[in-house]
Amino acid sequence: MAGGRGERFWPQSRLAMPKHLLPIVGDRALLVQTIERLLPMIPAERVLIITNRQQAPAIRALCPALPAANIVAEPVGRDTAAAVGLALVLVRRRDPQATFAMLPADHVIHDTVAFRDDLERAFAAAEREPLLVTLGIRPTEPATGFGYIHRGPARAGQDGVFDVSRFVEKPTLPVAQGYLATGEYLWNAGMFFWRVPVVAEAFAKHVPDLWADLGQFDAALAAGQPLDAVLDAVYPTLKKISVDYALIEKATNVAVIPARFDWDDVGAWPAVMRHFPADAAGNVRRGATVVEQAADNLVVSSADHLVAVLGVKDLIVVHTPDATLVCPKDKAQEIKVLLKRCEAAAELQRFL
Amino acid sequence: MAGGRGERFWPQSRLAMPKHLLPIVGDRALLVQTIERLLPMIPAERVLIITNRQQAPAIRALCPALPAANIVAEPVGRDTAAAVGLALVLVRRRDPQATFAMLPADHVIHDTVAFRDDLERAFAAAEREPLLVTLGIRPTEPATGFGYIHRGPARAGQDGVFDVSRFVEKPTLPVAQGYLATGEYLWNAGMFFWRVPVVAEAFAKHVPDLWADLGQFDAALAAGQPLDAVLDAVYPTLKKISVDYALIEKATNVAVIPARFDWDDVGAWPAVMRHFPADAAGNVRRGATVVEQAADNLVVSSADHLVAVLGVKDLIVVHTPDATLVCPKDKAQEIKVLLKRCEAAAELQRFL
Repeated sequence: MAGGRGERFWPQSRLAMPKHLLPIVGDRALLVQTIERLLPMIPAERVLIITNRQQAPAIRALCPALPAANIVAEPVGRDTAAAVGLALVLVRRRDPQATFAMLPADHVIHDTVAFRDDLERAFAAAEREPLLVTLGIRPTEPATGFGYIHRGPARAGQDGVFDVSRFVEKPTLPVAQGYLATGEYLWNAGMFFWRVPVVAEAFAKHVPDLWADLGQFDAALAAGQPLDAVLDAVYPTLKKISVDYALIEKATNVAVIPARFDWDDVGAWPAVMRHFPADAAGNVRRGATVVEQAADNLVVSSADHLVAVLGVKDLIVVHTPDATLVCPKDKAQEIKVLLKRCEAAAELQRFL
Repeated sequence: MAGGRGERFWPQSRLAMPKHLLPIVGDRALLVQTIERLLPMIPAERVLIITNRQQAPAIRALCPALPAANIVAEPVGRDTAAAVGLALVLVRRRDPQATFAMLPADHVIHDTVAFRDDLERAFAAAEREPLLVTLGIRPTEPATGFGYIHRGPARAGQDGVFDVSRFVEKPTLPVAQGYLATGEYLWNAGMFFWRVPVVAEAFAKHVPDLWADLGQFDAALAAGQPLDAVLDAVYPTLKKISVDYALIEKATNVAVIPARFDWDDVGAWPAVMRHFPADAAGNVRRGATVVEQAADNLVVSSADHLVAVLGVKDLIVVHTPDATLVCPKDKAQEIKVLLKRCEAAAELQRFL
């Protein structure tokens, strides 16, 4: 899944150039890093990308190894249940008994060996029993920005696989602290593994209206209509609901595997600092920068533009050719308010 | 006098584009505003600019009304006594009895009527008696960045003209507060008015070695050597001393006229804010900017680059095509330390 607006990485991210198309961490786009993490296990012909029309050209350019037909562009966003349903229909047309994974395109994972090992275990679990399998991330802090998974008892005969007791929405800080203390809660990173018949049954049972519409979609493709035309006709009418609400939180056959790899969703600019070495004063600097009497700042520029920072602390300064952001680290979540101001001013909309 | 490096307005000011060549305040270069302030009184043929070789081309482009010969470029900087001496030699060659003024090119003065009226009075005073006349600025705050003039008794028969009791160097804050309390101190703005024979006598008396070298310079011009060649040969050897040290603080025939016009030397970025309207939160913004939860900032960009500022206070953010500065207002005086860092790094010298 490679959609979304990536507002929190403005001004590097834009409507047509969101977070996963940028080398926010590392030297290639996060989407490219995600695909390369999979390639030794999953050949390029079997990697499908669900994106949107604005981003599709950039994705085609970034991923030349993928067949063009594997890059599927939603005409409009209809939340994640529709995207998963679209993937399900397309995979089922290739193999009605296939096992497949849904993975986000914009997470940072350094330990690719452990990642692929966990993926093997998740695929195996999904093939052994009719389960909706998810990988849960062991929390490293009482984050309030993620949903949590309360794991239940270990499943008999499946090593390291647990029943899910319940999914919980983003908690308050004290609640999150309580979750961490139990050792029984995992972060929901939106990584799912299932067989086509199992997830199809879940759709039919829990979101029958959406499932019926997806059947219509499947029929049109079977009748030979081109994909984009069918998407144009059907997609805008699909029920708009998240896959968590629609399926995962309702299903009783969800299992969770605690992940063994490192994981960071790099939710906003301050998170980037964890992935680069800092100077002696704690500044993380990329591109041409000069700092003086400045500590714990993130300063991002390019080779041909100098960003000079003097006497400031805990600031984010990001320069791009047509826009520059200056904000304290603890305000990074409010960039969207800034962008609303740009939306409201005709002369500033070109910077979105 | 239009030289200097203007480091304190980096990144807008550069080695070859210092403060007086920029529209730091107003919509034209400060030098152009300075000349236009004079033009109704003093025709363009009688305006001479003492600058340096790096800036001369830009000045010629900015001041097409001035004869090319009136733009005189020092091959190297030798402080202000040499520049005044150079002006004196050039003016004396035009008219040995002339009265002339030395004026800085980078001050902001809005009340041009009062300015020209004060200039008339200063010229008149210099013509009536053999005086070195200066205009003193009435201090509006106990500034520690200026030299002060302690005025003595009013001169008999010259309305509004005072003897100078003494010149004092940049004072400490308590000393400056004491000066303000007396009402007898004025800021030294470096504006001088004198007749050629009077200032020539002061040179001969107080800096005889420099005066002798200037005589050599005059002789070479009289012998028909071209100005730039003479400058190349003589100028680098001239004594390096300020006109204040060399002449003004030593002479006993200095008079001061308290100025009636508004005046601001706009010494650094924070001073710019006084000359532009602020938004409701006290932000002064130029070019394409957007602010959110931000107060009392100076945000400068251009029409084709958006500077977005979120959740910060009392910050200076200045964007130019190849460099951006971020610093708190109270650190603006330390930009030169930042530029020293750039000087020290080969790959950053192009941003100076």
